Amino acid sequence: MKTKAAIAWKAGQPLTIEEVDLEGPREGEVLIEVKATGICHTDYYTLSGADPEGIFPAILGHEGAGVVVDVGPNVKSLRTGDHVIPLYTPECRQCKFCLSQKTNLCQAIRSTQGRGLMPDATTRFHLDGKPIFHYMGTSTFSNYIVVPEIAVAKIRSDAPFDKVCYIGCGVTTGIGAVIFTAKVEAGANVVVFGLGGIGLNVIQAARMVGADKIIGVDINPGREEMARKFGMTHFVNPLKEENVVDTIVQLTDGGADYSFECIGNVQVMRQALECCHKGWGQSIIIGVAEAGKEISTRPFQLVTGRQWKGSAFGGARGRTDVPKIVDWYMEGKINIDDLITHHLTLDQINKGFDLMKAGESIRSVVVY
Amino acid sequence: MKTKAAIAWKAGQPLTIEEVDLEGPREGEVLIEVKATGICHTDYYTLSGADPEGIFPAILGHEGAGVVVDVGPNVKSLRTGDHVIPLYTPECRQCKFCLSQKTNLCQAIRSTQGRGLMPDATTRFHLDGKPIFHYMGTSTFSNYIVVPEIAVAKIRSDAPFDKVCYIGCGVTTGIGAVIFTAKVEAGANVVVFGLGGIGLNVIQAARMVGADKIIGVDINPGREEMARKFGMTHFVNPLKEENVVDTIVQLTDGGADYSFECIGNVQVMRQALECCHKGWGQSIIIGVAEAGKEISTRPFQLVTGRQWKGSAFGGARGRTDVPKIVDWYMEGKINIDDLITHHLTLDQINKGFDLMKAGESIRSVVVY
Repeated sequence: MKTKAAIAWKAGQPLTIEEVDLEGPREGEVLIEVKATGICHTDYYTLSGADPEGIFPAILGHEGAGVVVDVGPNVKSLRTGDHVIPLYTPECRQCKFCLSQKTNLCQAIRSTQGRGLMPDATTRFHLDGKPIFHYMGTSTFSNYIVVPEIAVAKIRSDAPFDKVCYIGCGVTTGIGAVIFTAKVEAGANVVVFGLGGIGLNVIQAARMVGADKIIGVDINPGREEMARKFGMTHFVNPLKEENVVDTIVQLTDGGADYSFECIGNVQVMRQALECCHKGWGQSIIIGVAEAGKEISTRPFQLVTGRQWKGSAFGGARGRTDVPKIVDWYMEGKINIDDLITHHLTLDQINKGFDLMKAGESIRSVVVY
Repeated sequence: MKTKAAIAWKAGQPLTIEEVDLEGPREGEVLIEVKATGICHTDYYTLSGADPEGIFPAILGHEGAGVVVDVGPNVKSLRTGDHVIPLYTPECRQCKFCLSQKTNLCQAIRSTQGRGLMPDATTRFHLDGKPIFHYMGTSTFSNYIVVPEIAVAKIRSDAPFDKVCYIGCGVTTGIGAVIFTAKVEAGANVVVFGLGGIGLNVIQAARMVGADKIIGVDINPGREEMARKFGMTHFVNPLKEENVVDTIVQLTDGGADYSFECIGNVQVMRQALECCHKGWGQSIIIGVAEAGKEISTRPFQLVTGRQWKGSAFGGARGRTDVPKIVDWYMEGKINIDDLITHHLTLDQINKGFDLMKAGESIRSVVVY
């Protein structure tokens, strides 16, 4: 079949919209009509050329929602008509990682996914007879995609695609870090470094689970208002503080029970650890640092009880937890609508990248 | 009263044995006849002058066992004749830290203890009318000591003092890191960096809880035999390996479930983290690094699921957990006897420091 898709030909160039050949689903695969997709910083990171693992030409996009329109042989958990979110972190429920029950980082198809290929080491996309690579196993900048069954979360059919697509990455990354990675409890003091989309989702999850103080830290005072709307109780602007760690320790009577780094800055990661409470404070790294950058601290920080952790895809198991987050949205427990600042058509996708680069969007969503 | 004690007059000098004046217990305090005390690296560290918080003149020693011989007013949990281990980490069961149930680092008397004083900011020791400072709230290099009730673990009366004194620091630090801090489960793969006294206690605790592979890492091949006796299943000598992290990852089919750094070397701390299994491996820092040294790694190590933690006094609550460890020793679950390599009199205490410095002892114990 043919599908309309945005192609990234090489690093640093705008995407072009093409009619691409898409082969149907093979065994264990499904065909999805993507109804909407967010444009995430990770797409921008790869397109910019900064991602050392970037592969071109590829169809980017990894934050989609849509409908199953065909299934390959031996697909058991999905059928035509199911509403779904494709998963860049699959959940096979069979590998050492899934069976450990200690991580969401299923490794079943990691090696082919990292090479832009389906699990059988081929691509389903071609243009003029040449393969176009998949991206993060999802490629949601295509109107139709083929993905493995284990990389699909089935969701309720009354959820709006143009909102819940954001659960495919950003929402789950922030919400999940609070609920699945840190397991923040009611009454805890939480500090959030960076009040972009991820930080706002961390804040609303902290509110959802009953956190006490929710302190947001950002050098941009323009972000305070939105963050307060999402549940932030205190705002700290590092540019106005002599020592942001001391300020937080004082605000929290000893330090944060949980801190979250949502920027990707290794100096901020250190502050996030060191503002934690002696004895038990946990710091969770969510932001992705530049290649080669390192975090550091005195080991005394850990010996006196602070813990340093990280979170990928919010620690969420895709097929198990993503449908729960969709429910939380539909039940009004979390707010996604106010985070979707722009709706675009696929033809306008480059504008979405421009808005992100200029800091003018929280999330732009392409609606097919 | 008078008591015989070893006094550290200043950094770098041998201890001298003196008859010291000891004032009796005040409210909430008890008088203990110390029957035996280990000589620990931390005593040596302070005596050497490397400890920036060292105070002189002081009576060192923090790894003792003895008998209560008098109690001050309002002491409720102890009586004359009780066998006890004095605690440099108290357990008041009232402070924010104790009540958190997340840490053993009781802060009830921390500020005075750090200044070499009793909780009322005075010393009980004097010589020629001048105060001699307490050390770590215990000062077990004195035959008689006064300590606060909250800094005393009551133990069974049939346990031999010259063995269980080691539970006052080293044994608990190693055993506790496995059982209370990391909570190692049966079947886990454990890696231990540094096969001194702490490392051997980590190893035997890992064996006690049913760990699978227990890999010891040390540049001294002479330590292999003893470590195997304590439960080590594999020995890795970094001097014989191209890359010790790779070796461990291969030995464990992906990495350690838990690793323990028992040396105090920040480069080894990094290896200990990076040899952990993706998704869930935890690295616990036990060793004390030199002042000013920092640990570092790529944040990707944490984002992909490794956790960096530390442990002080094995995460053990002194009054609650130390008596359990004494029971484990008496029940034959852990071996202390083979770790006590030398018995000395108080007059021979400087010899104990010499043996430690020369690497000729695991633990020297002074018996009064």
